[in-house]
Amino acid sequence: MQVLLNKNQVYLDYNATTPPATFLAKEIQNYLSTWGNPSSTHQAGQKARAMFWAGKQHLAEFLGCNPLELIATSGGSEANNLAIKGLYEKYFIDSKEGNNQPQRDEVILSAVEHPSVLAPMRFLEKKGLKLKVIPISPEGALDIDFYKKTLSEKTFMVSVMCANNETGNMFPIKTIAKMAKDAGALFHCDAVQALGKLEISLNQWGVDTASFSAHKFYGLKGVGVLYCRKGLNPESLIHGGPQERRRRAGTENPLGMACFGAVAKKGEEILKKLQPLKALRDEMEQNILSALPRAMVIGKPSPRLDNTSCIYIPNILAETLLMNMDLKGYAFSVGSACHSGSLNPSSVLQAMGLTEQQARSAFRVSLGLGVQKKHLDKFVPDLIESVKRVGAFS
Amino acid sequence: MQVLLNKNQVYLDYNATTPPATFLAKEIQNYLSTWGNPSSTHQAGQKARAMFWAGKQHLAEFLGCNPLELIATSGGSEANNLAIKGLYEKYFIDSKEGNNQPQRDEVILSAVEHPSVLAPMRFLEKKGLKLKVIPISPEGALDIDFYKKTLSEKTFMVSVMCANNETGNMFPIKTIAKMAKDAGALFHCDAVQALGKLEISLNQWGVDTASFSAHKFYGLKGVGVLYCRKGLNPESLIHGGPQERRRRAGTENPLGMACFGAVAKKGEEILKKLQPLKALRDEMEQNILSALPRAMVIGKPSPRLDNTSCIYIPNILAETLLMNMDLKGYAFSVGSACHSGSLNPSSVLQAMGLTEQQARSAFRVSLGLGVQKKHLDKFVPDLIESVKRVGAFS
Repeated sequence: MQVLLNKNQVYLDYNATTPPATFLAKEIQNYLSTWGNPSSTHQAGQKARAMFWAGKQHLAEFLGCNPLELIATSGGSEANNLAIKGLYEKYFIDSKEGNNQPQRDEVILSAVEHPSVLAPMRFLEKKGLKLKVIPISPEGALDIDFYKKTLSEKTFMVSVMCANNETGNMFPIKTIAKMAKDAGALFHCDAVQALGKLEISLNQWGVDTASFSAHKFYGLKGVGVLYCRKGLNPESLIHGGPQERRRRAGTENPLGMACFGAVAKKGEEILKKLQPLKALRDEMEQNILSALPRAMVIGKPSPRLDNTSCIYIPNILAETLLMNMDLKGYAFSVGSACHSGSLNPSSVLQAMGLTEQQARSAFRVSLGLGVQKKHLDKFVPDLIESVKRVGAFS
Repeated sequence: MQVLLNKNQVYLDYNATTPPATFLAKEIQNYLSTWGNPSSTHQAGQKARAMFWAGKQHLAEFLGCNPLELIATSGGSEANNLAIKGLYEKYFIDSKEGNNQPQRDEVILSAVEHPSVLAPMRFLEKKGLKLKVIPISPEGALDIDFYKKTLSEKTFMVSVMCANNETGNMFPIKTIAKMAKDAGALFHCDAVQALGKLEISLNQWGVDTASFSAHKFYGLKGVGVLYCRKGLNPESLIHGGPQERRRRAGTENPLGMACFGAVAKKGEEILKKLQPLKALRDEMEQNILSALPRAMVIGKPSPRLDNTSCIYIPNILAETLLMNMDLKGYAFSVGSACHSGSLNPSSVLQAMGLTEQQARSAFRVSLGLGVQKKHLDKFVPDLIESVKRVGAFS
C-alpha cells in the first residue's frame, strides 16, 4: 500500500496525522457517486447505506468486534467525549435518580491522557465527579500500585489510553480493564494511537468503550468510531434522528466510512509492512544519542509503539529546532499536534517529571508507511547539524 | 455548475441530501494531497490550515458573516446540538451559579423543528428547562400571537428553523429574532434547509446562532458549521484540544471544508440557476392536482421554499407509492429522510393538523440543480399511474 507523500518533504509526524492511502484517491471517485442519504428508503439512499455498512464491517473485522458495536463519529475527540460524557449521563446521572446502589463518584485516569479525554473529565469534575490521576513514571510506566489502591466501590469509570501520542508508551489495557471490571467500574480506552500500529482484538481487550480515528490510519479526517460493547448504551452526545441505533444522530458519512473500511481491509498488510519500523526507529535513536550524548529518549525503558520517538536534548528550544528543520524539508513535532503553536509545553512530559523548561527541549518523531531508511539516514545528520546551530543561539 | 447525477434515476429528494458538485470530483484530488494536520506548525500542517481557512472564508462570504463566527462541525445535527446544549451549559448553568438575574428557564420552539433541535430540547427538559411550543397552522404559518404572548423575561432561548425540511414552509426569522432579542432571550435558527435555496445575510438576520450543513448544498457529508455571533461563547459539545478557538475540539477536516467553501464560492451562481425551479414546482403541483382533485399541497398558502412540495393524497399509503415509484427510477421521500424506514409518520404534518393516518398519505418532492422540466413531465404521469395502482390496493 502506497501513501500520498510529497516528494519534497520527509514527513515524520505520523502520530499527528497520516497521509491518506494512494488507492483512496481513485476509490473516492466511486464513493463520491454513491452520495445518497443512508436514511432514504429509495435506491440512492440504500446504496449509500450499503456502502456505509460495508465500510463499518471491514473495520469491525480488523478491530475484532461486531459492526453493531461501532458507533460512527466525526473522529477520535468526539468518540472520547461520547464515551465519557455519554456514560456519565446514562449511568451516573441515572443512578442518582432512584436506585440504591452505592454512589460511585470517582473517575480514574492516567496522567498522560489526550486533551479530548482530560477536558471532558474536567468538565464532569465541575459537575461533581472526583478525578484520581494515576502517575506515570519518568520511564513511562503506569503506577499499577496506585491504580490498585485507588480502584474501589467508589470508582465510576476508568480511562486509560492504549498508547501515548507523544512518547508512544503503551499501557497494559487488558490487565487494568480486568481490574476495573472486577471493581464494578466502567473502562474506556482512547486507542486512537494504537490503530495501524499494533494488533487490536477488542473482543479480547475486555474494555467497555474504545476510540479510533481514520486520519491516524491512512484515511480521511472527520471520521472516527467509538467501540461500545454490546449491552452498554451511552447517552447520545448529538441528539436527533435515529441514526446509529439512536446512539449518534446526524446523517452518516458513507464516503468517509468507506475509506476507513477500505484501509482497514488492508490492515494486516499495513501492520506487516510496518514491522521494519522498530529497527529503523531504534537505529535513528542510537545515531542521535551517539552524536549527542546528553540527549535522552523519553519513556524508553517502558513498552513503546514501534514508530514513536520522543527525544529530549538539554538546552535546545525544540520549537526553534522544528522550524529550522522544517526549512530543510522535515516535518516532525513538539509534543502533540494540538499543542503545537501554543505556548504551553507538553503536559504529558511534565507529568513524567520533566520541568516546564525541559519539556520545551523535547520533540517527537513518529514514523509510518512510506518512511524509509534513506530518509532517516539523511534526517539524523541534518538534525544534528540543526541542533548545533540552534544550540549556539539558545 | 453540474452535479453528480445518476442517469438511470430521476432524483427528487434534494432536501434529504444533494448530489455533490461535479467539479468537486476533480478538486478533491488536490484537496486530498493537502492532508496535513492543521494544528501542526510545519509546512504540511500549515498548508492544510490555509486550505481549511480558505474554505471557511468563502463560506463566510456567502453567508454574510465573519469567518471567525463560523464553528466547523460534523454537520447540521452537531451544529444544532452545539448551539442548544452549548448555550444552555454556558448561560443557563452559569447563571444558576451566582448572579442575581431573574432565572430564565423557558425555551420556545416551533412545533415543526427538526429532530436535531427537538431532541436536545427534550434532553434539557429533563434537566429542568420548560418547553413552550409555537403552533403551526394547517396552512404552514407560525402562530406569531402565541409567540408574542409566550416570550417573556422567563424565556432563555428561542429556536425556530428558517425553512421546514418537509413542507418547505419559511418562517419570518428577522422579525422573530428581533422580538427574542428585545425580550432578552437567545435566538437559534436551524438554517440547514435554507442554504443554497435563498439569499442568506447572517449579519442582517439578527440571530445568535444558526446551523448549516454541506451535504444539503452540493458538498460532502460529515461537514457543517454553526454560525455563532461575535461575543457569544457556547460551551463546547466536544471538549479537548484548542481547535476552533476552543469552541469545538478535534482535528479539523480541511478536505470537507475546502469542498464546502468551493461550492459556496459558486453560491450566487447556484441561486441564479435555481430561479426557474419555482415555476417547475408550481407546474408539477398544478398537474398533479388537476389529475387528482382530492390531492392537496401541504403548507401551500404560506411562504415556502421554491424547491419543495409536500403532497397529501387521501387514502394512499405514501410508503408504498414511494416504493412503486422507486422501481420506476424516481427518488423522493415520505417525510424527512430520518423518518424514512421508521414506522412513525411525520410529526411535522401531525403538528400541522393531519391525523396519523393522513400523515401516512403525504410525500415530499424536493428539487435542485440538475432537475429539468423533462424530468417532471415524465414524473407526473408516472406518479399518477402509480397512485392509481397503489390506491387500488389500499
